[in-house]
Amino acid sequence: MHFDYSPKVQDLQARLQAFMDAHIYPNEARFMDEVAANRARGNPWRPTELVERLKPLARAAGLWNLFLPNSPRAPEGLSNLEYAPLCEIMGRVSFAPEVFNCSAPDTGNMETLERYASEALKDRWLAPLLRGEIRSAFLMTEPEVASSDATNIQCRIEREGDELRINGRKWWSSGAGDPRCAVFILMGKTDPQAPRHAQQSMVVVPADAPGVHIERALTVFGYDDAPHGHMELRLENVRVPASHILLGAGRGFEIAQGRLGPGRIHHCMRSIGAAERALELMCQRLTRRVAFGKPLAAQSVWHERIAESRCLIEQARLLTLKAAYMMDTVGNKVAKAEIAMIKVVAPNVACQVLDWAIQAHGGAGVSQDFVLAQSYANQRTLRLADGPDEVHRMAIAKLELARHQVQATTELEPPVTRGC
Amino acid sequence: MHFDYSPKVQDLQARLQAFMDAHIYPNEARFMDEVAANRARGNPWRPTELVERLKPLARAAGLWNLFLPNSPRAPEGLSNLEYAPLCEIMGRVSFAPEVFNCSAPDTGNMETLERYASEALKDRWLAPLLRGEIRSAFLMTEPEVASSDATNIQCRIEREGDELRINGRKWWSSGAGDPRCAVFILMGKTDPQAPRHAQQSMVVVPADAPGVHIERALTVFGYDDAPHGHMELRLENVRVPASHILLGAGRGFEIAQGRLGPGRIHHCMRSIGAAERALELMCQRLTRRVAFGKPLAAQSVWHERIAESRCLIEQARLLTLKAAYMMDTVGNKVAKAEIAMIKVVAPNVACQVLDWAIQAHGGAGVSQDFVLAQSYANQRTLRLADGPDEVHRMAIAKLELARHQVQATTELEPPVTRGC
Amino acid sequence: MHFDYSPKVQDLQARLQAFMDAHIYPNEARFMDEVAANRARGNPWRPTELVERLKPLARAAGLWNLFLPNSPRAPEGLSNLEYAPLCEIMGRVSFAPEVFNCSAPDTGNMETLERYASEALKDRWLAPLLRGEIRSAFLMTEPEVASSDATNIQCRIEREGDELRINGRKWWSSGAGDPRCAVFILMGKTDPQAPRHAQQSMVVVPADAPGVHIERALTVFGYDDAPHGHMELRLENVRVPASHILLGAGRGFEIAQGRLGPGRIHHCMRSIGAAERALELMCQRLTRRVAFGKPLAAQSVWHERIAESRCLIEQARLLTLKAAYMMDTVGNKVAKAEIAMIKVVAPNVACQVLDWAIQAHGGAGVSQDFVLAQSYANQRTLRLADGPDEVHRMAIAKLELARHQVQATTELEPPVTRGC
Amino acid sequence: MHFDYSPKVQDLQARLQAFMDAHIYPNEARFMDEVAANRARGNPWRPTELVERLKPLARAAGLWNLFLPNSPRAPEGLSNLEYAPLCEIMGRVSFAPEVFNCSAPDTGNMETLERYASEALKDRWLAPLLRGEIRSAFLMTEPEVASSDATNIQCRIEREGDELRINGRKWWSSGAGDPRCAVFILMGKTDPQAPRHAQQSMVVVPADAPGVHIERALTVFGYDDAPHGHMELRLENVRVPASHILLGAGRGFEIAQGRLGPGRIHHCMRSIGAAERALELMCQRLTRRVAFGKPLAAQSVWHERIAESRCLIEQARLLTLKAAYMMDTVGNKVAKAEIAMIKVVAPNVACQVLDWAIQAHGGAGVSQDFVLAQSYANQRTLRLADGPDEVHRMAIAKLELARHQVQATTELEPPVTRGC
Repeated sequence: MHFDYSPKVQDLQARLQAFMDAHIYPNEARFMDEVAANRARGNPWRPTELVERLKPLARAAGLWNLFLPNSPRAPEGLSNLEYAPLCEIMGRVSFAPEVFNCSAPDTGNMETLERYASEALKDRWLAPLLRGEIRSAFLMTEPEVASSDATNIQCRIEREGDELRINGRKWWSSGAGDPRCAVFILMGKTDPQAPRHAQQSMVVVPADAPGVHIERALTVFGYDDAPHGHMELRLENVRVPASHILLGAGRGFEIAQGRLGPGRIHHCMRSIGAAERALELMCQRLTRRVAFGKPLAAQSVWHERIAESRCLIEQARLLTLKAAYMMDTVGNKVAKAEIAMIKVVAPNVACQVLDWAIQAHGGAGVSQDFVLAQSYANQRTLRLADGPDEVHRMAIAKLELARHQVQATTELEPPVTRGC
Repeated sequence: MHFDYSPKVQDLQARLQAFMDAHIYPNEARFMDEVAANRARGNPWRPTELVERLKPLARAAGLWNLFLPNSPRAPEGLSNLEYAPLCEIMGRVSFAPEVFNCSAPDTGNMETLERYASEALKDRWLAPLLRGEIRSAFLMTEPEVASSDATNIQCRIEREGDELRINGRKWWSSGAGDPRCAVFILMGKTDPQAPRHAQQSMVVVPADAPGVHIERALTVFGYDDAPHGHMELRLENVRVPASHILLGAGRGFEIAQGRLGPGRIHHCMRSIGAAERALELMCQRLTRRVAFGKPLAAQSVWHERIAESRCLIEQARLLTLKAAYMMDTVGNKVAKAEIAMIKVVAPNVACQVLDWAIQAHGGAGVSQDFVLAQSYANQRTLRLADGPDEVHRMAIAKLELARHQVQATTELEPPVTRGC
Repeated sequence: MHFDYSPKVQDLQARLQAFMDAHIYPNEARFMDEVAANRARGNPWRPTELVERLKPLARAAGLWNLFLPNSPRAPEGLSNLEYAPLCEIMGRVSFAPEVFNCSAPDTGNMETLERYASEALKDRWLAPLLRGEIRSAFLMTEPEVASSDATNIQCRIEREGDELRINGRKWWSSGAGDPRCAVFILMGKTDPQAPRHAQQSMVVVPADAPGVHIERALTVFGYDDAPHGHMELRLENVRVPASHILLGAGRGFEIAQGRLGPGRIHHCMRSIGAAERALELMCQRLTRRVAFGKPLAAQSVWHERIAESRCLIEQARLLTLKAAYMMDTVGNKVAKAEIAMIKVVAPNVACQVLDWAIQAHGGAGVSQDFVLAQSYANQRTLRLADGPDEVHRMAIAKLELARHQVQATTELEPPVTRGC
Repeated sequence: MHFDYSPKVQDLQARLQAFMDAHIYPNEARFMDEVAANRARGNPWRPTELVERLKPLARAAGLWNLFLPNSPRAPEGLSNLEYAPLCEIMGRVSFAPEVFNCSAPDTGNMETLERYASEALKDRWLAPLLRGEIRSAFLMTEPEVASSDATNIQCRIEREGDELRINGRKWWSSGAGDPRCAVFILMGKTDPQAPRHAQQSMVVVPADAPGVHIERALTVFGYDDAPHGHMELRLENVRVPASHILLGAGRGFEIAQGRLGPGRIHHCMRSIGAAERALELMCQRLTRRVAFGKPLAAQSVWHERIAESRCLIEQARLLTLKAAYMMDTVGNKVAKAEIAMIKVVAPNVACQVLDWAIQAHGGAGVSQDFVLAQSYANQRTLRLADGPDEVHRMAIAKLELARHQVQATTELEPPVTRGC
């Protein structure tokens, strides 16, 4: 057991921090302004010039594709444990991860392609994604069913000769409205008669395939989350080559579990960054504002919340690091309890700290003057995305109960005392 | 002690409910569409044709100005206790209160004018407000200071002959962007040398006075809350007649306490309506969605939350009704502990129930497809508006401690036992 | 709607308060000492001379049998609504209710006998109970099964000629160890083949019937709760006349619902009294202790907790009063949601306030020097007794869902907006 | 960063676990019975024969004095990080730590003597403590003042020639009633005129010194915690040699900070063991009990609580391990924030998990049939012992604020956007 970051990680932290200080924090207002200007001109989904300008700088600084472990195509990729503290730093600013080509849903999609796609598909889609030339979307959730139970997914994928014909409706397909978004990974049902967990498959769908219709953008609380955005799509007789199926027909669940692990832990790392920033803003605000004769920072109700925030964040970070360590050492499958745990813990911690930080800021906290309200909306959504809290808690509980049910047959707990 | 609504109230409830069913619920989407169209055309603050069309219907139905007790100008006005269950019903839909001329901040402003304004000011401003012809704003909070401590307020009101010259910056002036908004009630400092609670005054300011500048609109979790909106204003050498001071110079605090009581309880009544609606939507959604082989409504984690929601709402409603009863019978001043209590309880209850309802809806819950996310943003803001939770809890605690400090001198609690 | 206590109730409150001040509070230490002395002499279950001495005083003061509504045998009995604020006052001291012949489980048992027993049984058992000459126990819960689901109850009642033969094991039979305890009301299974809710019956069992064995006393946290106590009993071929069955064979559930309503609400009223006392002690302690340069009462973390305590107590009291009002006006059956709600709310509120009060007292809070720890143990147990929180929440949720499922068929909630 | 236990620790875990299975768990009822028999014979403080019989076995098994790092007198001592997972296992059973000579308050006292006592004092007191021949108590807290602020401590230590004269009253002196308890470490005031943190000193006091009076035993909830117990003592003109002062007059605070770190973290490790055991019992119980047609373990409300318990425990353990690592690597002083954090987190987590476990057990949960209620009482007390939650949260908050106040001067957070 050893709790220090490695020298390699400490070096990367320092360089990433310097990049954030030089290029990210000073441009937060400019980013918002550029998006607002694009929105006012009628197209909020247009990529910002700011991010496009910063990407080459990040790449030149060696801060690029840090997320992808064990890929010959991304030698700079780190292990999950190494990546965690860097991803956390990026998570402090909403547009930062893209600058380093480390943004959702691309990282999860790239990992999926790296693991499960043919070399041909990798050449076609993974390569430009790794270069940051195109973006991607993940088409899983559907509006008509409780997608938290993935067996509910209805989108139909039918084999017709050498092609797959796809019909269905998807939503919360984040990034699908970006003009650079060139490819989707889609989950759908290839065999409704197969056993419950072998009905689904994942396929690669070019975004410009005929029959792909972007119907509308969803808002998150009041935010459109432009330029990224969350789209509802209709797929009507969309055709792709049969070779676009990943891993094999009926193996969608298997991929989902492999894909969602890294995707989820990246979200958690960023959640911790968001929580740290909220605590920082909270402390700064409380120090500067005076009410009833003393700084808010001197009032013990805020001591309680600051301390509780620090305790929550430290613990969430350690659990995330442990989950990353297990993913690296024993694999995503064995680490499934830990992944489920951080998936519940991290956004809940972030929401709690953000809520206190908002309260500390008064009306300013819910407004556009601070990142807090938008960050809250984002973190609140993560309690639903990639499976709601309840589904992950059920999974954790079943693993826990399984452990004790085995014991239960061999060891009956004795009452401690028998007499009165 | 008697817990039934009076026949008069039950009749009004039935009529209001019928009006909601006929004219409000069926038009919710249309209202949103009209605002969106106005926003797209560049002016989200434009009043909707829908509400303007419904107002005469509500007035004709005898559902108008129900909020104002004991005013010769509004004979239809009810007591606080009578009004509470009606205000709750209106609170279920964001634009409903205005249809009945019962919307914030106008109701609080009308009550203030009724109580503290001269007959001339009443003729000029209260009369058209009661007719629903104009609207109003309340200019209290300032961006530069912790306005939770009202003695911090910096806006300067200087006497110059028969005029008052006003300079300052205000924000969260809700409704000030509405073209119908004709009048402000403003809190500012008339005498910086006076004792701490006698420095402030309230004055009536015509919205079109020279020197009034609307600087920008604030967002609430991404929402612009159009067509109402929340404005930041700059007042630069704004001049009004000295007769526009309410009650007298230095009596701003006194008015604030009188004004905020009714304004706060109206918010609480609406919060309860919002919570009821959230519980309703949650139950409906859980009944319809199936996951892991059974309706979500059959899962005991949701039983816990539904039951807890019902317990929280029932209790918050009873406390609100008791506070209303006390305002009617012993006055706003004596009821200050109860008003502070519901100010804390009601929006917190609504936030909790809304959060569960959002969780029950999955991604749809944070989107524009249901009222939940916007309602959450609204209720969350009410934990800050008119004083943050912490300030009200401090007030409640001081009243409680005062009670026990008196006892403390006369009655020492004895240890229950002395031996081992 | 009317929130003042009636003059009759206010008069009783004043008289009861005076009795508490004169005879109960000053004797708290003496009561503990007398019990401790009895325990040291080997019989903690011996009734105290103190309580026996105070009972005639209470009866003479007209403060006797206040709990029983509508009984010709107890003309002094009040309605539930009238009784609530008096029961709350008694609930502040653990031994006080017995002084006024208003203690559990006797009040629930007396109500059961009054409603469901023959005149002969009433003469034999209800009359001396109402005179405070004997006490009683309720034999429901069993150690081997989850008694929260009453259909699990296994105790066997078999008809043999004119007699009933009873075999089973019961626990948490509070008061059964008291030498004055002369009679039990027992729930058992008369017909295992009957429909699920018609298998159980309630019978009256004399405590001295052959075959009744008191096996041991249970502790609550470390308390034996002497002299009352909680017993585990074994019933082995216990025989009672068949006429001792209440209401009729197979109607045990029906009685349980009738009995438990009043029993539960009495517990809730006392919980509120316990919570009020905890808040009082907390305020007094915080006022007197100084740390880090100022009284604890001046620290805002305690303001939060005091205020939250006050809000919680006020709301729990109002909900309890409303439930009592409904029991009086529409009956226990229609009031079942409200009874379930207060059964969850009141002890949880008391536990929360007590926990804060303990924290405010430091080590003294968990010790014998204050009533707080024992009161916590008592209130914590009430979250399990008469049905755990989870069962009552399930009942509340099912009533709520039923309401919305009907609506669901007739009114589909429309998405608020359709476009993006 | 590395999250596996070292081979050495894994080996010790296995051996300790085997010892627990062979000698501790099977004797839990016997321990309770022996204490009950002693109590019935009039002396609950008598050491049990059971523990005395097991101690040589533990020593022979190499499971002895594991807690003391870097002492030539205890070569078997482990680092804090190594010791943590072993202490956790011991913490699952109340009497287990003593069997391994690893129980409070002796471990903290031995560490204090090792660090701050003269060799003569070490020979006299540390040596027999390390051999498990005598026991010790820590006399810090006082009944008359808020001891959470240690400057409040009033016990007077006056120099008279070569002697110190001690007068004062102490309570919560755990273990002082044990006939084997031979020595106290006492905190008292040597110089009331010195600066606030230099007034206090620590001295070694033989338990049999004339003037030491044990006044009574305190209960924790209803438990006497025999045979250990918590004593209130009066010291009346107690005299010890001046050489018994540790480190030097006026350096009591310095020692307190050094002593309390290890003592606190040991408590936290045991708290995690107690929480683990509660979760285990909860899962077992839920698996075996059926209500409303299915095992409780299949109900989703319990899934939520089991999962939340697992998340809380994992995080608390990681934070405790990190704190131990820091104590080992950078020292107790630098690790003070982490020590304060786990002091708050661990017992709160244990209380929460225990509360759910009690609820899962129904009435049995609060009774003597399971360890849950007593364990709850113990953990609840740890939220007060060695400083209440509030004081530790204040310390954490001040460290956090200090960090941001420095930043505050150099970096003003800019509003994210400036326009509307």
